[in-house]
Amino acid sequence: MNIPKENFSEWYNEIIKEAKLCDLRYNLKGFVVIPPNAAQVMKIMYRIYEEALEKKGHKPTYFPALIPERNLKAESEHVAGFVPEVFWVTKAGTADLEEPMAMRPTSETAMYPMFALWINGKSDLPLKIYQSCQVWRHETKATKPFIRTREFYWIEAHDVFATEEEALMQVREDMETTEEILHQRFGIPFIFFKRPQWDKFAGAVDTYAADTLMPDGKTLQLPSTHMLGQNFSKAFNVRYMNEDGSYTFGWQTCYGPAISRIYAALFSMHGDNKGLVYPFEMAPVQVIIIPIMKKDTEAEVRKKVEELKQRYPTTQALTLPVLWLAQEQFGYISEETMKYVATLLNVPFGHVLGVVSFYTMFHRKRVGKHHIEVCTNVSCMLRGSAEIAKRLERKLGIQMGETSQDNKWTLSEVECMGSCGSAPMVAIGEEYYENLSVDKLDK
Amino acid sequence: MNIPKENFSEWYNEIIKEAKLCDLRYNLKGFVVIPPNAAQVMKIMYRIYEEALEKKGHKPTYFPALIPERNLKAESEHVAGFVPEVFWVTKAGTADLEEPMAMRPTSETAMYPMFALWINGKSDLPLKIYQSCQVWRHETKATKPFIRTREFYWIEAHDVFATEEEALMQVREDMETTEEILHQRFGIPFIFFKRPQWDKFAGAVDTYAADTLMPDGKTLQLPSTHMLGQNFSKAFNVRYMNEDGSYTFGWQTCYGPAISRIYAALFSMHGDNKGLVYPFEMAPVQVIIIPIMKKDTEAEVRKKVEELKQRYPTTQALTLPVLWLAQEQFGYISEETMKYVATLLNVPFGHVLGVVSFYTMFHRKRVGKHHIEVCTNVSCMLRGSAEIAKRLERKLGIQMGETSQDNKWTLSEVECMGSCGSAPMVAIGEEYYENLSVDKLDK
Repeated sequence: MNIPKENFSEWYNEIIKEAKLCDLRYNLKGFVVIPPNAAQVMKIMYRIYEEALEKKGHKPTYFPALIPERNLKAESEHVAGFVPEVFWVTKAGTADLEEPMAMRPTSETAMYPMFALWINGKSDLPLKIYQSCQVWRHETKATKPFIRTREFYWIEAHDVFATEEEALMQVREDMETTEEILHQRFGIPFIFFKRPQWDKFAGAVDTYAADTLMPDGKTLQLPSTHMLGQNFSKAFNVRYMNEDGSYTFGWQTCYGPAISRIYAALFSMHGDNKGLVYPFEMAPVQVIIIPIMKKDTEAEVRKKVEELKQRYPTTQALTLPVLWLAQEQFGYISEETMKYVATLLNVPFGHVLGVVSFYTMFHRKRVGKHHIEVCTNVSCMLRGSAEIAKRLERKLGIQMGETSQDNKWTLSEVECMGSCGSAPMVAIGEEYYENLSVDKLDK
Repeated sequence: MNIPKENFSEWYNEIIKEAKLCDLRYNLKGFVVIPPNAAQVMKIMYRIYEEALEKKGHKPTYFPALIPERNLKAESEHVAGFVPEVFWVTKAGTADLEEPMAMRPTSETAMYPMFALWINGKSDLPLKIYQSCQVWRHETKATKPFIRTREFYWIEAHDVFATEEEALMQVREDMETTEEILHQRFGIPFIFFKRPQWDKFAGAVDTYAADTLMPDGKTLQLPSTHMLGQNFSKAFNVRYMNEDGSYTFGWQTCYGPAISRIYAALFSMHGDNKGLVYPFEMAPVQVIIIPIMKKDTEAEVRKKVEELKQRYPTTQALTLPVLWLAQEQFGYISEETMKYVATLLNVPFGHVLGVVSFYTMFHRKRVGKHHIEVCTNVSCMLRGSAEIAKRLERKLGIQMGETSQDNKWTLSEVECMGSCGSAPMVAIGEEYYENLSVDKLDK
């Protein structure tokens, strides 16, 4: 990157170009091509979001991309809000259509006439669905890749409830989902604001939108959730019959996380002067660099690994001696070292973990010079190992699993070491002390 | 279902209606709504297909849904083939557009101008990408849900190679992918046919399409793969520079599995007179019915489970006694029983498996009246358990892990039972026999 992140606006354009996140050379103004580098991450984002929505009871659907003009006009505020931005299909083949069709700018008017057919009684509620799709809006403001384009990628969730209270609870659930996904998984901080009436979603009673601060200090609107009240249900006849034969119109909400725009926030928040940075689970290429060799002994260790390779028939069999080498280097085996060894030897991580867990000679934490292992398995326990353990803790001033500050003593609780017949027992290094009691210990 | 599958065409319409796979009441001719029942399965199908394509080196992309008229006209055969079916966007808001935009009927003319920008040298090849999207075609023939609609759901994969040979190999790979997915995972049989020239994809050199036989004996065209040769690369200038400064046009292929149509084949093949049938991994609702109670003792067992519930603080703690009940019923614990118990008590399957593996009192296979368990762990092994095991096998005429034909004896090898001090040992039922030798055994 040639431009520091302080010049955010230029940095944004440069990272898109250098990391090939978006190709602006498609020959339709406001439309862009999203090449693999970005599409891979957006697909991961879609899957994470869809899974979260499904867990909360939303089911996937596919609704048509085209909406007849008469549907769009059924809710007056809504049509007024969107019609200036609508792309209209007026011809098919060489013939003019009788009625123009709108490319969906959002799907309320495509979905809600169907909801009216799907909902009869109260038992059809709540209805919670979503679709992952594109929407098209003829933006007249300046466009900016991922943030404002004439075609964008999003999920829209639409819900109908029997009561206003349930609908308001859904608005809250949408806010929680936003927190779980955007903040906790994508690492994007934000605050929800209730929008003033002049700035709400067209046709809604209230709009709650999450705003994030971009690195240049400007706000960017992220997902919004809308309390639609009964505005649309009355326009589209979405209602259920009560026991007395009267009707109640449904209480509706909708929620629209725009994946393409959230993606803009993702790489803007995490990227730096060197380039792209993603949260680990979002990264299409995941790499961890872990040394198992210290610099000054590297050549020697490499030579030993090569020697070992000659002596063992399979890489699986090499696991034990290579782990032993690693422990000699660092004094213990970290999880990262296990992952490295698994990759190095091309064996499953589970195999390496199994080996390290099984053999007590491998330490998963740094240990001191003297390692005291107290058996607390059944036989030893019955014969007083707990008392011995406590005495040792008090004597050394450390708890089980800890190492003393002078790095001299480490105290561990271990599973059966095969001396049940002479319980309780304690091992210090490789020496066994059997048939112990607190008295003997003190000596 | 009221209509037998023999009347396939009516059965098809009925299953769509009864199982709520598609809603035909959307008020645009040829456009349908796909409600959750079908959308859930189509999403699973998409994921299986995308994973398979990615494994073979295709990367995801997103290309615009709209294509300028001039792009579409660049390849003459192609435009002649598709223009009669194109939906045209001619207006945005209230203004007419200067140039009409086509809703993609397929994406060659959207993608290939970009390929021309992406490919410079030979090192940019092969280029293998895909997108999951909808396409729109103003079908004038009779439409049929999932099989022929004006909007359909598919994946399109587009590849560019340096040589004709590699392109032909890709056509073969596409056929193999079709076999792996459609046949082996979706359970849909088919045969690939090379299409005659009058029936090929518009602009292609050759088209190979998979046909399946639907239950009424009619063929249905499933995914097709196309050898495009250099027809499009010449029209869109997709070429690479050779070492001598000359250019070679890319050799191209494309592949189009239509998820919505394959879904039609899926439920048509597997469904029966009772309704929907899916291959197990495709089913959004997966159920296995496993009894843990025999009919004649059902009431009694139910009562015991209720009693147990009172006595244990958590369902996790109930695992042991409920498994014990199950073993009393069947004499052993099958994997299905463990799954059932996990579901019944709402504990992880791994917990149940752990309990059953840990306690030697649980049998994972049917056992005989007398159960002989031979310890072959270290201490017993060192003191001759192998000889004892062999002698028992010979005497009873069965191998370790087997049960005698008269159902009287079962022989098992077990891990340490805590009698290392008096090894070797054997347990028969709950009796321990210690410090054994072959001589003592014979007595």
